[in-house]
Amino acid sequence: MSPKEVRLKARKGEINASTVNYCDGFVQCNLAILPRAYADDFARFCELNPKACPVVGVSAPGHWDLPAIGEDLDLRTDVPSYYVYRHGEFAGQVQTITDLWQDDFVAFAIGCSFSFDHVLREENIPLRHVEQNSTAGVYVTNIPNVPAGPFGGNLVVSMRPLKAADAIRAIEITSRYPRVHGSPVHIGDPSLIGIRDIGAIDYGDRVPVRDDELPVFWACGVTPHRAMLSARLPLAIAHTPGHMLVTDLPVASMLV
Amino acid sequence: MSPKEVRLKARKGEINASTVNYCDGFVQCNLAILPRAYADDFARFCELNPKACPVVGVSAPGHWDLPAIGEDLDLRTDVPSYYVYRHGEFAGQVQTITDLWQDDFVAFAIGCSFSFDHVLREENIPLRHVEQNSTAGVYVTNIPNVPAGPFGGNLVVSMRPLKAADAIRAIEITSRYPRVHGSPVHIGDPSLIGIRDIGAIDYGDRVPVRDDELPVFWACGVTPHRAMLSARLPLAIAHTPGHMLVTDLPVASMLV
Repeated sequence: MSPKEVRLKARKGEINASTVNYCDGFVQCNLAILPRAYADDFARFCELNPKACPVVGVSAPGHWDLPAIGEDLDLRTDVPSYYVYRHGEFAGQVQTITDLWQDDFVAFAIGCSFSFDHVLREENIPLRHVEQNSTAGVYVTNIPNVPAGPFGGNLVVSMRPLKAADAIRAIEITSRYPRVHGSPVHIGDPSLIGIRDIGAIDYGDRVPVRDDELPVFWACGVTPHRAMLSARLPLAIAHTPGHMLVTDLPVASMLV
Repeated sequence: MSPKEVRLKARKGEINASTVNYCDGFVQCNLAILPRAYADDFARFCELNPKACPVVGVSAPGHWDLPAIGEDLDLRTDVPSYYVYRHGEFAGQVQTITDLWQDDFVAFAIGCSFSFDHVLREENIPLRHVEQNSTAGVYVTNIPNVPAGPFGGNLVVSMRPLKAADAIRAIEITSRYPRVHGSPVHIGDPSLIGIRDIGAIDYGDRVPVRDDELPVFWACGVTPHRAMLSARLPLAIAHTPGHMLVTDLPVASMLV
C-alpha cells in the first residue's frame, strides 16, 4: 500500500494497530495539535529539543491538510487513533478528531523513528519490535526538556535491544537522519536515565532485552505529549503512541 | 612541536613514551615492517581487515623514507621505540632498527586511533588515557581476523571508557574517520569479545572504567603484530604499542 492508501484506510477506521510495518521507505510522523495561541511557544520548544521534536511539517491555523507532507491528507482522520489531553490530564483515546477540531488548531508533524527502522533492517540489523509488529517500549526519563513558555516535561525515549556491533552500526546510520530523531540519546544501563525497571513501559509495547544485547534509547515523539501535559492546555491532541501519520516523504530525502 | 620536530626528537632518542599527547590534529600511524616476499599477502590482509588495518602509506621496497606521509621521515629511527618479532616470537624492544634494516623491507603505515582523540576532546568528550598521558588499554579479542596467506591471528582492540552520551557521540564522530579505525567494533560487556578481565591488559596501559561508564572498543593497529606473530616470519618489526609514527597528514584530511 502507498502512504496515501494507508491514510485512507486509517480514515475509514480500518487500521487499529502500530503502523510500524506500513510503508517502508516513507517518513512516519508524530502529531501534536494545539490552539494557535500556544503554537509559537511550542515551535520554540521543538527548536530547543531537536532530538525529541524534529519538526517535519506545520499546518496553517485551522487547516486540516498538510500538502507538503501528504497528498489529500486529513489531520482529523488519517492517524489510526488519537490521544486527547484536557487541562493536563489524559482525556481519552479516539479514532477521529473531526468533532473536536477547532478553527484555531495548528498541527505539528514531528519525525518518528519508525522512519529509519527499515533502513536498519536493510543493513541486517534485526529489530524485535518490528518482528513483533508492535510499537517499541517507550519510557519517560528523568532528563528534563529545555522548557519554552508553558511547555516542559521530561524527555521520552523509545528502546531497541541490539547486540553491540548492531548498536554501533545503528548509531552510525541514524546519526544521518536527524529529522527522524537521529542518533540515540542513551545506551546501556537504563537506571542512568531514570528508568528503574526496563520491563515497566510507560507507552508502547514491552520488548525484551536479551543477555547479549544492550538497550539503545532514541528520543521519542511522545515527548510532546509530556510537554502538552505539563502545559495544562485546555485542549491538546496527539497521535496514539505507535499509531503514526504516514507521509509521502521518502526517508531517503531526510538523509544528511 | 611540529610532526617533523617530534620525529627528529624520536630519532635522537629524546622521546620514550606514548605519543598520545603529541601533535594534536595530525595523523599518527602504526608500523608493520616485513620482507618484500610477504608484502602482497600482508597488503591483502589489510584490505580484508580494514577496521584494524587501514593503510595510510606503503614504502617502496628497501626505502626507509615515506614522503607521502612525512617530510624527511626515516622509518628506521622516527618511532620512539620498536618491537622486533622473529619466527613468531617477541624478540625485544629497541629504540632504532638501523642495524636490523634489510634491503627488501617494506613498511606499512596503518592509521592509529590516537589521530581522532583530539577531535573527540574538542567535542568535550573526556579521554582518560589522554589525561593519564598513556596508551589506552589494549586487548586481544576472541574475534579471528580474516586470514590472507600466512597472516591471521585475532583482532586487537583499544578501550576508551565513556559515559553513554559521550560514547554515542564518539561513535558518530569516529565513523567519519575510517582511515584511522573508524567507529568502534564493540561496546559494553567485554566478555562478549573474549576479554575476561578488563583489568588485565595485553598491551598499552591500564585505564579504569567507572560505574557510570561503558567500555568502548576500537579496532587497534596492534592487530598486525598478532598477524605477523601468527605468520612466524623470520623477521618482522612493528612500533611499540602507543609509540607511534607521527605524520605530516592533517587528521581533517581523513574525514569522509
